[in-house]
Amino acid sequence: MNFPSKLIENAVNEMSKLPGIGKKTALRLVLHLLKREEEATLTLAESLTQMRTQIQYCRQCHNIADTETCAICASRSRDRSVVCVEDTRDVLAIENTAQYKGLYHVLGGIISPLEGVGPADLHIDSLLRRLPESTIQEVILALSPTMEGDTTAFYLTKKLKIYNLKISTIAPGHPSGR
Amino acid sequence: MNFPSKLIENAVNEMSKLPGIGKKTALRLVLHLLKREEEATLTLAESLTQMRTQIQYCRQCHNIADTETCAICASRSRDRSVVCVEDTRDVLAIENTAQYKGLYHVLGGIISPLEGVGPADLHIDSLLRRLPESTIQEVILALSPTMEGDTTAFYLTKKLKIYNLKISTIAPGHPSGR
Repeated sequence: MNFPSKLIENAVNEMSKLPGIGKKTALRLVLHLLKREEEATLTLAESLTQMRTQIQYCRQCHNIADTETCAICASRSRDRSVVCVEDTRDVLAIENTAQYKGLYHVLGGIISPLEGVGPADLHIDSLLRRLPESTIQEVILALSPTMEGDTTAFYLTKKLKIYNLKISTIAPGHPSGR
Repeated sequence: MNFPSKLIENAVNEMSKLPGIGKKTALRLVLHLLKREEEATLTLAESLTQMRTQIQYCRQCHNIADTETCAICASRSRDRSVVCVEDTRDVLAIENTAQYKGLYHVLGGIISPLEGVGPADLHIDSLLRRLPESTIQEVILALSPTMEGDTTAFYLTKKLKIYNLKISTIAPGHPSGR
C-alpha cells in the first residue's frame, strides 16, 4: 500500500503491530482519528503513555494496581484462599463473576519450554515466600487446560506440598471462553 | 467491567472510542501493550500524536500530504483529468489500482442534510476556483452510489456546467467494496 504521507504510514505501521489489527484496519482507525478533533488523539496517546509508564504491580499478588498493594490484597473481607492464575485478564474474568471472595496470585505466564519460559520466569518464588507469612489455607490452581497449564500445575503442586495446604484445581470442564 | 487500575480503565475507555473496537478488544490491546516493552507503547503514542498534529493537506486537492502540495498534484506526468472523491481512502483505493493517471480533488465528505453537511462544508469552492486556473479537461465524479452521493454529483454537475468540461461519473456497477 502506498501512503500519501510518511506520518500516516508510521501511524498505520505502529497500529498494525497490535494483535488482530491488520494494515487495512489500522488505516481505517488512523483516518478516523484524523477526522476527529485533535484533542481526541492526544488524549488517546496520553492515556496509553501514562498507562504504560505509571502502572504498578501489586507487591503481593503481582496483579496490576495503582498502588503498591492492590485493592484485593488490601481488603480485609477477602477469605484466606488464593487462586493462582496466569495473568491479569484471568483476575478480571474471575472478579467479574463476583462468585469468588478470596485472594489471587498472578504468575505472569505458564511454564512453556518451547517458548523458553521456565519456573524462574514466573512469580512462583514470591508465592512460596508469601505462604508461610500469611494465614492462607487453600491454593486453587486456575491455569489453562493445556499441556503447559498442566505442567505448571504439576510443578506448583510439588512445590506446595510441604506447606500442608489444601491444593485444588478448577475442573477441566470449566468454560474457559474469554 | 471493574478494572484493577484507573490507568488501565482510562486507556481502555480511550481505545474503545475507536470504530469497531469494543471494551473487550480494547482491554486485550491494552494488556498486550503492557506485556511488551515500554518503548513499543511510547512509539505508538508518539506516532499517533505526530500524525495528528503535523499532518498537512494539499493546498490544491485537499488530500493528505507531508508538504503544502501533494506528490500527485506536484507530478508533471499526471494527465489533465480530475477525479472528485469523498475522502483520502478513496484516493488510496484508486491509486492502489495503478490504473488512473490523473489528478484528484478530495471533497471531504458528501452533501448530507440529515447529518447537517451542506455544500459549504465541502471543498467545492476550491474545486471551482481550481478549474479556470488549470488545464483540466475532464472531471470524473467518483462518489458513493447512495442518495447523498447522487445529490452531491447532481449539485456538482450543475455547478460545473459553465466551465465547458467533460463531466463523467463512474458506473454504478463499479465494485465499491473497500
